[in-house]
Parts: sequence; C-alpha cells; structure tokens
Amino acid sequence: MSNCIIAQSGGPTAVDNATIAGIVRANQLNPIYDHVYGSLYGMEGILKEDFIDCTSFSEEEIRRLRQTPGSALGTCRFRIRRINKTDFEYFIDILDRYDIETVFFTGGNDSMDTIVVLKELAEKHHVKHHKFIGCPKTIDNDLMETDHAPGYASAARFIASTALSTWLDLSAYPETRKEVFILETMGRDAGWLAASACMGKHVDILIVPEVPFDKTIFIEEVRRIIYEKSKCYVVVSEGARFADGVYVAAGEAKSDLFGQTVLGGAARALETMIVDAGAATRCRVQVLSAAQRCHAAELSLVDYNEAFEIGMYIHGASAQDGISGRMAAIRRKKGDVYEAEYCTVDADIAANYVRALPVKWLKPRFTGITEEAEKYFEPLIQGSVDLLMENGLPAYAMPYYLRDDVIRVERK
Amino acid sequence: MSNCIIAQSGGPTAVDNATIAGIVRANQLNPIYDHVYGSLYGMEGILKEDFIDCTSFSEEEIRRLRQTPGSALGTCRFRIRRINKTDFEYFIDILDRYDIETVFFTGGNDSMDTIVVLKELAEKHHVKHHKFIGCPKTIDNDLMETDHAPGYASAARFIASTALSTWLDLSAYPETRKEVFILETMGRDAGWLAASACMGKHVDILIVPEVPFDKTIFIEEVRRIIYEKSKCYVVVSEGARFADGVYVAAGEAKSDLFGQTVLGGAARALETMIVDAGAATRCRVQVLSAAQRCHAAELSLVDYNEAFEIGMYIHGASAQDGISGRMAAIRRKKGDVYEAEYCTVDADIAANYVRALPVKWLKPRFTGITEEAEKYFEPLIQGSVDLLMENGLPAYAMPYYLRDDVIRVERK
Repeated sequence: MSNCIIAQSGGPTAVDNATIAGIVRANQLNPIYDHVYGSLYGMEGILKEDFIDCTSFSEEEIRRLRQTPGSALGTCRFRIRRINKTDFEYFIDILDRYDIETVFFTGGNDSMDTIVVLKELAEKHHVKHHKFIGCPKTIDNDLMETDHAPGYASAARFIASTALSTWLDLSAYPETRKEVFILETMGRDAGWLAASACMGKHVDILIVPEVPFDKTIFIEEVRRIIYEKSKCYVVVSEGARFADGVYVAAGEAKSDLFGQTVLGGAARALETMIVDAGAATRCRVQVLSAAQRCHAAELSLVDYNEAFEIGMYIHGASAQDGISGRMAAIRRKKGDVYEAEYCTVDADIAANYVRALPVKWLKPRFTGITEEAEKYFEPLIQGSVDLLMENGLPAYAMPYYLRDDVIRVERK
Repeated sequence: MSNCIIAQSGGPTAVDNATIAGIVRANQLNPIYDHVYGSLYGMEGILKEDFIDCTSFSEEEIRRLRQTPGSALGTCRFRIRRINKTDFEYFIDILDRYDIETVFFTGGNDSMDTIVVLKELAEKHHVKHHKFIGCPKTIDNDLMETDHAPGYASAARFIASTALSTWLDLSAYPETRKEVFILETMGRDAGWLAASACMGKHVDILIVPEVPFDKTIFIEEVRRIIYEKSKCYVVVSEGARFADGVYVAAGEAKSDLFGQTVLGGAARALETMIVDAGAATRCRVQVLSAAQRCHAAELSLVDYNEAFEIGMYIHGASAQDGISGRMAAIRRKKGDVYEAEYCTVDADIAANYVRALPVKWLKPRFTGITEEAEKYFEPLIQGSVDLLMENGLPAYAMPYYLRDDVIRVERK
C-alpha cells in the first residue's frame, strides 16, 4: 500500500476539518492507505515536506476535529499556474519519496484549478501513479456541479439565525423610530450567502450580485417599507454591483495578493445612500465578516454530516481508475424528503466557472426570494450538532501546526 | 387583588424576555396579581394605554418567549427627568384606572433612574399604593450592586465563542502572512464585554475603557506578538479612550437622541494605526454590532435560567413592603461551586453609577486578563440551552406588538 496526503487551501469554513476527519476515519475503517498524512499549510507544506501523520487519530481527536472551524492543518493560497516543469518534477519527487499516491485538496475554485493543472502536468510528463483529487468546500457556494458545497450550509444557518435575531432587535423600537438595518454578507460574486438570510423570514430587501443594483428602485423600496411598517431590514452581498459592473462598495475596495478585489463596504455604501436620500432617520449596519465562515457553535447538522461523509466517500472513491482531476460532489436526490448522495465530477468545470444564484429565484424590485428558492435552502440549515463542550465553549481541536502532541513525519 | 404591568426599556438583550416569562409564570404558580399586563413599547405603551394581557400565556408561549432575544413587548427610551406633576398625575391616573399596583421595569441604568424618579414623585405627592420595581438587564454589565446583569452572560458567551472561532480562522494561514485581527465589542464605558473575549483563550491584546489607551505601547505589543508568532489577536471595546478621555473611535463618533455618544469605529482606528506604523502586513476587522446582544442561538444556560428566575423572584418579592424603588439583583454565593441567589437593592445606586471592570483584573501592557478575572467570567458562560427549534432556526416568540393572536387589554 501507499500513502495519501490532505492539503487544505483557500479560506477556512466551519466544516473543512470535518472532511479531513472523514478521510482519516474512513481509512481507519477501510485502510486503503498505509498512512494518511496531513500537509501543514496546504501546498506550501507539501513543498516544504512539512507533514503530520493523521492515520491513528483517536476517536476523541476525530470528534473534536470534526466540529472545529478553520483549517486545522493550515491553509495557504498557492498560484498553481506559475508552476513549470522543474517545479513539477520537484513536487513529484517529494510525493515519490514519501510514497504518496493520492493528494486530496480541500477548497473552492482556486483549489480545483490546482487539481486540474496537476493532472494535466502529470499527463503531459507521463507521471501515472499519482492522483489529484478535490474535496469541495466554500461558504460562497459558487462551485459548479455540486448541489451545494460543504461549508455553505453552516454559514447560511448562522446568517439566517443572525438575520432573525437582529430583526427582532430592530423591530423592538416604537414606530416613531424609522430605522433601516443593513446586514452585509460575504459571497464574492454570488448571492447564495446573502439570500440565505431570507430563511429568517424577515428580510425586506435583498441585494445580490446577480441582479444589477438600481439605486432609484432601492430608495423607493426603502421609503415604501419604512412608510408601511417604520422598519426596513436590508441584506446586501459584498459583491453587489451596479449595471456597469462597478461594485456598490467601490469606494471601499482593496486588492489581495492574488490581485482579486477584497470586498466589503457595500452596507456602508447603502447606508450613505439612505441617509443622503433622507429615506430613514436612522440606519444600523452589521457586517458579518469572518464570523460567518467559522461560527461553528451553530453548525448545520446537515452540513456537519455531509462534510464528514464526503470525506469518507472520496477516500473510497480515490481507489477508482480515472479519479485524478475529479472533485467530489453532492447530488440532491429527487423526492419530497431531502437526501444527499455523493459522486465525482470533472474538477475542470468547478475550476473555471462560478455558479450564480438563479435569477428566477429572486422577486422583483429586490424584495427577496421565491418559494422555489426557499425549498432549496430550507433542508440545508436543519438540525443542530450536539457539540462536545469545554469550559462553556465548543471543544475545538487546536491547530496541528501549533501542537507538540502530533506525530510529525520524519523527513526522507 | 390588583394587577401588575411589565415595561421593557433600553437596548434589548438575549434574555430580557426570559425575565418577563419568569414573572408571568410565577403569577400562574402563585397568583398574587389578577392580571399580568405587558406594556407595548415600554413607558410609551403605559402612557398610550397600549397593553396586552400575559396572565394566561400557554406553556408553549412561555417557552418560546423565554428563549427569544429582543424585547417582545417592545422597548423605548424615555427621559423620565422631564416629567412634571401633571404628567405624573396623568400617569398615576392610568395605573389607577387599570388597577395596576406594581410596575416592573426591565432595563439598565436609565431604567433604574426611571424607577427612582417615580418612587420619589410618589412620595412627594403622597401616592402610596403603587410600586415601581426594577429588573436588571444589560449586556454591558455595568450595573452596580449585582454580581452581573442578566443578558451579559449570553453576550459574553457569544463574544468568547466568536473570538475563539475567528482566532482559528486567523491562525490558519502561514507564518509569511503577518496579520492582525481586531474584534470590536460593545460595552459603552465598561470593558466587561471586551474582556469576556479572553475566555476564548487566544486574545493577545485587550483594550478596554478602564485603562487609558497608549498608542506607543499598543504598537510595540503588536510588533512583539507578530514577531513571535506572526499573528496577533486584538479585542477592543467601543468605549476605549486615550488618557485625555478622547475615544479611540473619536473620528467615527455620532450622537443619539439622548445626546449620548453612539460608539463604534475603535477597531478601524486601531487598524489605521497598525497599517500606518507598518506593524503588520494585513489587518482584518470584525465589529460584532447588534449580533452580540441578540444572538440567542448561543444563550448561556446560566443566563437563561437566572433571567427567568430573577423574574420569578421579583414577582414574589413585589409583595413586600418598601419594595418600591428597588431593583432585583444577583449575588454570587461564597464557595468553589458557582451558585446564584437573588435579593433586592436600592435602584438609586444602579441609576447613578457605572460599574467598571476592576483594573486589577487586567494584565500590564494590554495583554489580557488575570486568572482572578477568569474565575469571575468562567461560570457565567457555562451550558447550552436545549432550544425549541422551527425550520432549522430557534423558535422565537414573535413580538406581541405585531401580533393579532394576543389579548389586547380593553381601554378603560
């Protein structure tokens, strides 16, 4: 038998580690690999040969890991397109030295791109005994070919719960207080996260990137709602934009190391519009920021289970021929009762396209989502996890890169 | 028998309604009042004679109400000091018409001030058969004479949990990413909320209003921590200020209808300092805003129980002589195991003073809290509530001012 390694990449989610736990546990039940290694800080860890051995994690460790947000192995952002033949040979040499047959990458679009490039390089250079396989995870839910991505449902549940409770907070004041509350979610260029707030049932206005933002209609709707009920609850996606493609948050935008725009500021921009138009006397803003992707105290049970199961599934599926370059995915079974099944799809599609929130799920004039959309979201946010607790807080696995009590793999 | 009425005031908390539920339930068990009325929108509702009858709430309604954040009866901010003799007589006439002997006000310092003024006016004008009683609640925990205020512990638990999970998010990236994460909490002029983040165990720097902010020391500490471990987790209270009393957030401050400063912006101000000093290459900000006071999905079991019990307690205590002008309070029993008991204290003290976080609980150079402080915080955040759920989210009682299925008290 040979070994496998897991590398996390991209932004953490609440259940990224549950997928790792699933792979590790599956190999304990059906040991198709001698060792399950974990790379510390993703691709960087592979290139530095900085590995831990997860093969014999205790049941307690697996339970903790499974409920821990973030990336317990460490993550990084790695620009695979820059790799040349020498780099690739160096990379393959590392895998060979540690007898690593399979590399599991957890991640979103960028990580799937890594898999595609590695698979293509392997074909080009006739490297046949390595497999590069993707495990989807992204709170943005913008991966093609999967009903939803692990990580999304827990973020959606936290957002819906926060929208409901802050709506209660907003509505507590008398009619004389004409107030708008604006909740800003992440989601980049897709509106999945913002739309999930509607599951709290009290969103008046929803602004997502899929429908061009129109300031006139927006202010008209704010005025109408304030007139009707004195309070107006608005949800805006960080990636909301005008018809010409300019972000609503344009004034606040920065760029990250990848040259991608770091979003944020859409809510403040809307607040300024409302105040300038005199559409309300008071405006409050709640930007969910990092909390929405790591708030594991409120995990969706569906997400928690699926993330673990997709790890177990892909572990077994990794034995199949032709699996390299593929990504695990979730399919929703037909029928009235929600049930998921797993399969693999070509990572190429996930790497190159972004899955948008269907525009037909949006009601006119930014007034929220349709019943059809609710049917999609509702099953995903069901159920609470019976968390292992410690000193009043969830008992999380401390990150492996900070720990002395894990088995470091000896350099070869 | 006569009747009693409950009026909520000030900013909502996660357990304000649990106290109402406690009063209502206590009267069902020991009916010392014919009716328990709820005033819609606090003092405004009393003056408008806008009441509902809570006397016969079902068990299901009480359970929902008990776990619902916000102010289910509605709240308001009311400037009691402006009241004159005519206003007072008008107010007493309303109470007489509805045969209301006791008025329970839930709230913080301002609400306790209302009680004090009403009691004094009653004495001055020889009005003897009315009682004005306070039920403490504030997430700020700045009320004197009570070990802690209901509402605080749940906010503290949410903050500690969020601090822990966002620290995991921060720490997931490689050493090459020198990053500071800044969490901003509410708390006005007291550091209780900010300090509670330290219960997540990974706060490097804590800035509270009780210790003057020193930019030089702050930047030195950020540099040291970034040098030592490449990541630095900072928590700042919205009310943090320089030695001359100027808020750290000064550039961002606004005023509310009471002429009080609306705080917020401290984290952004620190971010600017860090970036300008080049103390880190990256900085992220999380402002907890309204979510911290209403995030009932993560209620502290201790808080949930105490808020209900303090309602039951004050219901019974309201039969005592000399109770008018007093506030219910929580005492921590001596001993190693945390246990609370209830008593009443003079509302005057709570009305006029702010309880600061003890400075001796703070470590030098903004590096967090002492073990003694941890002993205070730890018992408060223990235990999770087995919430009644509905469609994947907590089943909250919808606000009574928006409902048709509650008994409105007929005007007299």
